[in-house]
Amino acid sequence: MLKSNGKQSKIRRKIYLDYASSALSTSANPGAIHELGVKEKSKLENARVRVAQILNARAFEIVFTSGATESNNLAILGMPRGHIVTTNIEHASVLETCKHRGEVTYVEVEANGIVNSEKVKKALRPDTILVSVMYANNEIGTIQPIREIAKEIRHFNKLHSRNTGSGAKQIFFHTDATQATNYLPLNVIELGVDMLSLNSAKIYGPKGVGALYVKKGTPISPIMFGGEQEGGLRPGTENVAGILEFTQALETIEKIKSKEVKRLTLLRDYFINKLHFMGVIINGDLQNRLPNNINITIPKIPSDLLVIELSARGVMASAKSACKSGDGKDSHVVRALRTADGLPAEAKASAGSLRFSLGRETTKRDIDYTLRALRYILEKLQKWY
Amino acid sequence: MLKSNGKQSKIRRKIYLDYASSALSTSANPGAIHELGVKEKSKLENARVRVAQILNARAFEIVFTSGATESNNLAILGMPRGHIVTTNIEHASVLETCKHRGEVTYVEVEANGIVNSEKVKKALRPDTILVSVMYANNEIGTIQPIREIAKEIRHFNKLHSRNTGSGAKQIFFHTDATQATNYLPLNVIELGVDMLSLNSAKIYGPKGVGALYVKKGTPISPIMFGGEQEGGLRPGTENVAGILEFTQALETIEKIKSKEVKRLTLLRDYFINKLHFMGVIINGDLQNRLPNNINITIPKIPSDLLVIELSARGVMASAKSACKSGDGKDSHVVRALRTADGLPAEAKASAGSLRFSLGRETTKRDIDYTLRALRYILEKLQKWY
Repeated sequence: MLKSNGKQSKIRRKIYLDYASSALSTSANPGAIHELGVKEKSKLENARVRVAQILNARAFEIVFTSGATESNNLAILGMPRGHIVTTNIEHASVLETCKHRGEVTYVEVEANGIVNSEKVKKALRPDTILVSVMYANNEIGTIQPIREIAKEIRHFNKLHSRNTGSGAKQIFFHTDATQATNYLPLNVIELGVDMLSLNSAKIYGPKGVGALYVKKGTPISPIMFGGEQEGGLRPGTENVAGILEFTQALETIEKIKSKEVKRLTLLRDYFINKLHFMGVIINGDLQNRLPNNINITIPKIPSDLLVIELSARGVMASAKSACKSGDGKDSHVVRALRTADGLPAEAKASAGSLRFSLGRETTKRDIDYTLRALRYILEKLQKWY
Repeated sequence: MLKSNGKQSKIRRKIYLDYASSALSTSANPGAIHELGVKEKSKLENARVRVAQILNARAFEIVFTSGATESNNLAILGMPRGHIVTTNIEHASVLETCKHRGEVTYVEVEANGIVNSEKVKKALRPDTILVSVMYANNEIGTIQPIREIAKEIRHFNKLHSRNTGSGAKQIFFHTDATQATNYLPLNVIELGVDMLSLNSAKIYGPKGVGALYVKKGTPISPIMFGGEQEGGLRPGTENVAGILEFTQALETIEKIKSKEVKRLTLLRDYFINKLHFMGVIINGDLQNRLPNNINITIPKIPSDLLVIELSARGVMASAKSACKSGDGKDSHVVRALRTADGLPAEAKASAGSLRFSLGRETTKRDIDYTLRALRYILEKLQKWY
């Protein structure tokens, strides 16, 4: 505190006169250069280092965003224009975004919901700039061969640089790891990706927060404009509190990952083995799928009705991506499986689907209850369908 | 609960099997059609109605975003291409964004930091699509004549529709109300705007949340792609918890607005009247300014140094917008004042600035302390500059 003679006393007051920058002094603007701003900035940069460590990346390669939708948009719209290769089972935030970038090749998944890396290889062209393939599918949980696809792209880039004599990398590889984060390895070097999207809300963190890993040298530009935050790639005051919770959630995931993978795999397989009633079809590969995903088709009965009937019995499941719920259309992912080769004819006819996604609090008792509820509902609805 | 015979008992269990949609059952995905999703959706739509009421808008005209930077980007990049009119003292999230839309006319503010609506009128052209003028400036707190500018635009639109025989509106009007929200009227009909940006972090709400009011009939398109949330204008799972806190913050603001305006105006004027030492220049109009803003220039002494010296004495102030802090450049706003006509020569020379922005917890004692600290710092630094 300043004494009336103007000299400093030992007791210091804190007077916050930067309300226009952030109304709450407890979460000052990390862009401010006063003490409280510098503290926030330090928390933010500490979070960036921690996220980078988990991904085996460097701190400056982490861009915090408002969620995976923004991360995917930045990864796609932020790249120079050129031919894009993706799959026909990506999340809407990839599929819809690619449409705004010119020519796109959609590699079709196999009947088991997994993309063949050979087919991705065949889709690569000299004018391809980006490949975007999700790490694990949000509806059917199938795990995509990211390392193999990365290898094909590296090979193509090598050939191309040899042919042209230019050492510059040509094709960049993005993966949306939103659904994979809870259960799969996240080492970006081992995966061989240039960009990777993360989402806080799917990993027990707050909504409205996400990140994009952007490997050094990736020619990405911002898609929104303003301040110079996030290395100039994402303007707007950083949501430090949300970013810290997200970082904490990511660290917790890493700690319990192997245990949860084992526990949920057992539960999932128990669930799947019990589901052999009334012609239930299991969608997606049984082995290469997330440990928490069960996706089924029940021929003839509308999926939305099943979700609502289950909800009335206290079971919260999903018909397809929540981002597309209630639009009255079938799942584009399950439709993709049905049009793939090698599927039995009776399965082809039915594109409805029901997704059960398990999590930290799911128990065997929950599964048993759900199976009973489902059997009860199917017996009831059978009369009408 | 279902009994083992499959019939329902009175006790109901809640089993959450939608972890892939949102990991926390306590904040389910508002896009999900099960009970918990519907509850979240209902909270979200209730918040939308409450925000709309405050703005005198309709619920479907409110789009929730990740903050004012995104709101401003959506308002500008989301409009069809055409000539844009803005001012030379807008926030970076307007100035930088306009640069990506083709031709822009920057109306220069007067020496008092207020834009002349006649000059905006003169900048309007037949190919103008958008006018974007901030409601109150973030650095110097000057309040812009939004109603007058709206009137000029209405007049132009009327003339134009008469000339062409088409009834379609031609020029749309956006205002960034980020700094105005705490203290000025927010009735969008009375203001006469087509779009208005809000930011949660500046009104004592959480960071990472904002909104854009978009009047029905405004030809706006999304700037990111994915799910169909927010009326198709803003994809991504809605941050319902953050939106609810933001809505609550906005309602609190409305309740205490008139009282806070009176209280802070007195404090501000007390502060300004005491600031007549060592050639301090007050930037911006003394009347038409936010009740919480004091912006001064102290000739010769670098602004960042003043912020750091004040911070060392416990006073958190700002040199300019936190979004532009530490880049070593002068404030573009204060520079705009200096180049305006009618300013004394000695003021023109000095573009550094120091912003004190008051808020809910600011007291007269804080101001007195700050004045003593500032006098002490200036006496010390005087020897060097």
